[in-house]
Amino acid sequence: MAPRRHNPDLHGNAPDSSPVALLIVDAINDLEFPGGAAMLPRAVRMARRIAALKRRATDLGIPTVYVNDNFGRWRSDFRRTVAHCLDDDVRGKPVVELLVPDENDYFVLKPKHSGFYNTTLDLLLDYLQTETLIITGIATDVCVLFTAADAYMRDMTVIVPSDCVTAVTPAAHRTGLAQMRSALKAKVTSSASIDLARLAHARRRASGGGKRSSRKRAG
Amino acid sequence: MAPRRHNPDLHGNAPDSSPVALLIVDAINDLEFPGGAAMLPRAVRMARRIAALKRRATDLGIPTVYVNDNFGRWRSDFRRTVAHCLDDDVRGKPVVELLVPDENDYFVLKPKHSGFYNTTLDLLLDYLQTETLIITGIATDVCVLFTAADAYMRDMTVIVPSDCVTAVTPAAHRTGLAQMRSALKAKVTSSASIDLARLAHARRRASGGGKRSSRKRAG
Amino acid sequence: MAPRRHNPDLHGNAPDSSPVALLIVDAINDLEFPGGAAMLPRAVRMARRIAALKRRATDLGIPTVYVNDNFGRWRSDFRRTVAHCLDDDVRGKPVVELLVPDENDYFVLKPKHSGFYNTTLDLLLDYLQTETLIITGIATDVCVLFTAADAYMRDMTVIVPSDCVTAVTPAAHRTGLAQMRSALKAKVTSSASIDLARLAHARRRASGGGKRSSRKRAG
Amino acid sequence: MAPRRHNPDLHGNAPDSSPVALLIVDAINDLEFPGGAAMLPRAVRMARRIAALKRRATDLGIPTVYVNDNFGRWRSDFRRTVAHCLDDDVRGKPVVELLVPDENDYFVLKPKHSGFYNTTLDLLLDYLQTETLIITGIATDVCVLFTAADAYMRDMTVIVPSDCVTAVTPAAHRTGLAQMRSALKAKVTSSASIDLARLAHARRRASGGGKRSSRKRAG
Repeated sequence: MAPRRHNPDLHGNAPDSSPVALLIVDAINDLEFPGGAAMLPRAVRMARRIAALKRRATDLGIPTVYVNDNFGRWRSDFRRTVAHCLDDDVRGKPVVELLVPDENDYFVLKPKHSGFYNTTLDLLLDYLQTETLIITGIATDVCVLFTAADAYMRDMTVIVPSDCVTAVTPAAHRTGLAQMRSALKAKVTSSASIDLARLAHARRRASGGGKRSSRKRAG
Repeated sequence: MAPRRHNPDLHGNAPDSSPVALLIVDAINDLEFPGGAAMLPRAVRMARRIAALKRRATDLGIPTVYVNDNFGRWRSDFRRTVAHCLDDDVRGKPVVELLVPDENDYFVLKPKHSGFYNTTLDLLLDYLQTETLIITGIATDVCVLFTAADAYMRDMTVIVPSDCVTAVTPAAHRTGLAQMRSALKAKVTSSASIDLARLAHARRRASGGGKRSSRKRAG
Repeated sequence: MAPRRHNPDLHGNAPDSSPVALLIVDAINDLEFPGGAAMLPRAVRMARRIAALKRRATDLGIPTVYVNDNFGRWRSDFRRTVAHCLDDDVRGKPVVELLVPDENDYFVLKPKHSGFYNTTLDLLLDYLQTETLIITGIATDVCVLFTAADAYMRDMTVIVPSDCVTAVTPAAHRTGLAQMRSALKAKVTSSASIDLARLAHARRRASGGGKRSSRKRAG
Repeated sequence: MAPRRHNPDLHGNAPDSSPVALLIVDAINDLEFPGGAAMLPRAVRMARRIAALKRRATDLGIPTVYVNDNFGRWRSDFRRTVAHCLDDDVRGKPVVELLVPDENDYFVLKPKHSGFYNTTLDLLLDYLQTETLIITGIATDVCVLFTAADAYMRDMTVIVPSDCVTAVTPAAHRTGLAQMRSALKAKVTSSASIDLARLAHARRRASGGGKRSSRKRAG
């Protein structure tokens, strides 16, 4: 059906296009898996940094996209997954409390490791005309890395704030960061040092068509 | 993260695999578009037939998958779209009332016309080991046809109950049916004549690997 | 590996970007299938028209993309498929003789019906910054229609010269054309009436980012 | 068009299904990029090992798939890329000489880093009913890793013979191997220790449908 064009105002109040977007990968997570208990303190620290980064992003009109596993619960929607993770007896509760989504956030349900695999993320980023992704969340060496690799293949610029990602072990965390730095040419840095204002106001590339065109041309 | 394997019981009570599935395409629809008013009586008749077919399917353990447009509302989840369509002043309300999803139904948000384009549908059907799709909903010649074509390319058997699909005009409806019958080798029939019990208990193909393998081999 | 950037001159002499491209779908075809003999005279007429259209396109710097089935011959490349179709005892020879590819043409091997399904076509069109497709070839109601539908979902403008497509039966041809005209808003017209010069010199859309961005925004 | 079914004999003499396949990624490579000269001796050693592994695989009926970049040459086919790399003044010639494809090998042209991204590889492996991939080639930490990650997301078993992959630097090689071992649960081993006979005769998984189904069910 064609009705999707009839009311452009449905999109809400946040800006509908942005050269940069903040991705939060699998942070809405009950941590109920082997290694989850040992990971919890690091995950809480990570969540505090993501929350701070998200506040700065929101103030600048930079959209946040939750890209989250459904953990096999194909029948659940994202709000229900959030509610589940806020139950008192769930290990991940202190992480998720810090990262409860707002009305203006976007959600993408991902069934596998990469946020781009069999999801709407690619189309959403096209719609938002986004060229740069700040990727945060869990785990540095798996879902964050896989999502970053798929963004890189789509000629997007990838920024990974090292204090806003974590993994089951510190070694896996370091390997993931090294990999993104070397193979994906990702900017790996502290969240505090990311100049969000500059990214938010980046002019789009002027020459020869648009975002995708110029990006893909490089490939 | 790997935790998705830790609790297979999360999937609910409905069977997690089925050789056949019922797809309901864009029936959760406010019909607020040009031609929507003229279409309403036909859409209500369609919804009654889909509801009856869905009851029969559910009794036999056949899963229902709502494959629905988000109509540009990237920030909404499916339950919110349902709620919106049940508002008193929404044209599609009498259609949607007949088709309110149950706890055990699956949802797939589709951003474009085909239910397979940039969505999780393909993976969900793999997970369900589904070989045959009964496709219903709106509109016969656009989203239903596009979804049927993508199912056919994936070597699935497509059944289209002609009383469970409709379009903006009767002529477009007929063209869509003709197209699916001839080009997609779809079985176009009345919903009453579909032998759901036989489809539900179909043995999987025995030879040489499984569903996907055998299906794709034919292609 | 990164070396793909080291030598931009490899692309040949034809312009590497064009707002419009000519697609030739499955015309490199041995026609060795039921209905192929009856179809042959129509296919030869079609091939003559495509050849004339391609000459006009080439003169204007509009690229031609052969999007062709491999007919199960995963081990063959496209030139070998062309060679096979030029064998003396192959039914499709008089068709293929009219459409032998040039050095500057592009090839996309498609394993299924749509030229976009599991192929490089989407990336190639991004690279070419193409917004409008002129789709020709075999068969109007199957591979041409499926390819046109996938182009429409990607917000491309679709033009179908009715004398440059054909199908197993005239009825199937007409249904395919009707479908593309109504559901895909395709421009169905005679090849002679397509103003290639205007299309070749179309300015890209100026506003808000580029091709893909603007296109997808409409969706 | 439907003719792809008319002649199953076109596929050649090699078996058309195999539980395991050998992938050779970007080894058909002119090495004409920064770092290519330093890499050459390692690439030649790698090529010798791949060639030996390929001979053992061929003797057991295990198919080889060349998954190769087109390096921006959209108009070239694979055989032409091979020919280019065999020119006297091309740096990669001693590598490519060792790995010239045979009549029975499969080719997949990949436009980006992963062999699965916008290519026919997924469909080809479905057709071959392959569950295990032995991934070889260039570079360990980029195209090999990306391809391995995409295979892992598709629930395939990944084996990486460490002497059959290489990278621009030894450090990048080691990081890539570590990543595949930890995040993808890949079996990283020497090529000599791979028990090809056992892999070639692996029975397919018996339970609940087939390959894809069982694999994806785990996800």
